[in-house]
Order: sequence, then structure tokens, then C-alpha cells
Amino acid sequence: MSAAGAVDFYFEFSSPYGYVASELADGIERRIGRALRWRPILLGPIFKITGQAPLTNVPLKGDYAKRDFARSARLHGVAYRQPDRFPIGTVAACRAFYSLDERDEPGARSFAKSLYRAYFVDNRNIGDTATMLQVARDAGFDSDALASAIEAPQLKERVRREVDAAIAAGVFGSPFFIVDGEPFWGVDRIPMLEDWVRKGGW
Amino acid sequence: MSAAGAVDFYFEFSSPYGYVASELADGIERRIGRALRWRPILLGPIFKITGQAPLTNVPLKGDYAKRDFARSARLHGVAYRQPDRFPIGTVAACRAFYSLDERDEPGARSFAKSLYRAYFVDNRNIGDTATMLQVARDAGFDSDALASAIEAPQLKERVRREVDAAIAAGVFGSPFFIVDGEPFWGVDRIPMLEDWVRKGGW
Repeated sequence: MSAAGAVDFYFEFSSPYGYVASELADGIERRIGRALRWRPILLGPIFKITGQAPLTNVPLKGDYAKRDFARSARLHGVAYRQPDRFPIGTVAACRAFYSLDERDEPGARSFAKSLYRAYFVDNRNIGDTATMLQVARDAGFDSDALASAIEAPQLKERVRREVDAAIAAGVFGSPFFIVDGEPFWGVDRIPMLEDWVRKGGW
Repeated sequence: MSAAGAVDFYFEFSSPYGYVASELADGIERRIGRALRWRPILLGPIFKITGQAPLTNVPLKGDYAKRDFARSARLHGVAYRQPDRFPIGTVAACRAFYSLDERDEPGARSFAKSLYRAYFVDNRNIGDTATMLQVARDAGFDSDALASAIEAPQLKERVRREVDAAIAAGVFGSPFFIVDGEPFWGVDRIPMLEDWVRKGGW
């Protein structure tokens, strides 16, 4: 990676577009020559500020969204299955991520990918803490340590802090990228982001 | 154009992304070999159903939106200036469009482009009926005839019918395209639309 700072990559574990972005993330890093800093967040508190609702709950938009989730995955060659339970609460998944991230950033990233695939390919409800921990175990992580860690006050506080910081940075959706202060929302803005980085701004 | 049916192209005259799409429309037609059927609509009644608000009024999203309007135009090589008055009411513009469209479809399309450029390039408030009619006059249309036409009950009813039909078809934003029943929302979905048409569905 170049000396330029990392690009913030915000995502919510219940977000189909966040999942697609997670599958494209390594390619983005290679093409722009800069690291992505993975930051799972919770859209619930953010939607309270923006007055938004989960896409599939919005009249007219809901049917479109389900169709577009699958189409967007397909366009990018990413496996996708609409989960039976959708959307789900992902606070435990977030805590587990940050628990790993504090000691092992590549491990946390790999864990995030495992969680996303479990949910959006294998239809496993990662909103259920036992299932989330089982996914961690299947991927070779110490799920007992994670089970304790996610109950620790400092991790609960950590997730709150991350969400507050995302809001302060203007994040309102998933995926959301910030490059040197410039925000890009959505899988569909990835080409714009890459063009932006290549040109050093417009 | 090929024998395949026209592609519905819905847009709102106050929509920056609708404007960008209008500038790309002729290229889309050439590439997919099918005609676009231009359909101005009003997002006001649609947002009442979906619970959405004009983008620039949404917390967090508003600042992003203004930045993204300009970026999206720039990405596509389209001139853009954020209008001083935004958003605006466009019912008179819609009525004028359909008045022309009933007799002269290419004329109506050309008029729509003139309105969009007046608003998003020259900062003229096309939500003001006198200004809208002046834009028509400047573009060579009979503005006196339009001024009478937009007061006629059948044109008011026509716009209501078009908006109802759009809602029935699932339209919730601008631009919005429907190809053989498949919906595509946003300038960013145009490549997906073209891919869809090329492959005859996925």
C-alpha cells in the first residue's frame, strides 16, 4: 500500500450492499493502492437520525430492493441468497469484530467475510449470538474467548463509539467509504471512488 | 429502433439525477437499440407513499446529496450548477410537457431537455410558471398556446393519471426506467439496464 492514509470502509453486517462491497474490497485496495480500514457499524441508530427505514420495509422501494440486492451481487459475480430473516440485529457481530480487530486486523477482516457469507450465502442467522459464535468457531476463531469478550463493557462502549464516530463523519448507509474526507455511498459509487483516488480528487 | 417495445423513462423535473439521465438518454437509446418513452412525474405524491423526503432535506444525507449531484454530473461529462431554489414544484412543467407530447413527441423531449438545462445549468427557476413558459418561448415553442393548455382540466387530469400509473408500476424515484417489467432506479443503474437488455434478461 502507498504512504497515503487508509480509506474508511463502513458497513452494517445486515446490509446486502455492504456484503457485496466486502467481496470487492480486496480488489479495490489493489486498484487504488491504499488500504481499507474496515468499520462495521449499526444502521439502527443512524436511521433514527435520518428518518430512514430498512429498505425492504419501505413501500414501493421494498420489492425493488430485494430484486436489486440479487442483481447487484450478480453484476459483480458475487454469490447471493436473500436470507429468510431480514434485516437482523448485528450488535453482537460488531462487538466480536472489534474484539478481534484490536489484536488482529487481518483476522477481523477475514471474520467479517465469514459472517457475511454465512448470512448472505448460507442463510445462517448471524443476528443470533450462538450462530454468530458458531460461524467464528467454524472459521477457526476462539469462540469461547469471543463469547466472553462481547459481554465486556469496554467492547459495548467501543461499538457505541464507532457508531458515533461514523455519524460524526456523515455516514448514513452501507457500504460507505471516506477517502481523505470525500464520502462515497453504495456499491455503485466504487468506480467513482477509484476514479477520485486515481485523479487525486476532481 | 428495434421491434422490441419502448423503455419507460420516468423523471421529475426537479431531480438532479433525472437531469443527468436526460443528457444520457440519446446514448442509451443508441446503445440498446430501443426507444425511451419520456415520462415526467411528480415525486411529491410518491414520497407521501414511501415516507421519503427531498434528498437535501434529510439529515446527514442532504450534504452528501449536493456533493454527489455535482460529482455524478461531472463523472458523465454533463454541465451542472446547484440551483439556488431547490427543490421546486414542477406540476406546470409536467402539464406543458404532456401538452406537447400529445402532438409532437420529439418536440416534447426537446422541451424537457431545455427545461432541465434552464434549471440545472442556467439557474432559472422553472418551478415559476412564467419562467417555465419563457424557457419554452426561448426554445421556439408557442408559449401562449402552452399557457392556455396547462390550465385545461384534461391536462391536469393527464398528469394525475401519469403519476398514478407510475406508482402502480412501482416507480419511487428519479430517474426510473422500466424495461419489459424490470425496474432500474438511478443514473448508477444505467450500465446494469444496458447489460440487462443486451443479454435479454439475466
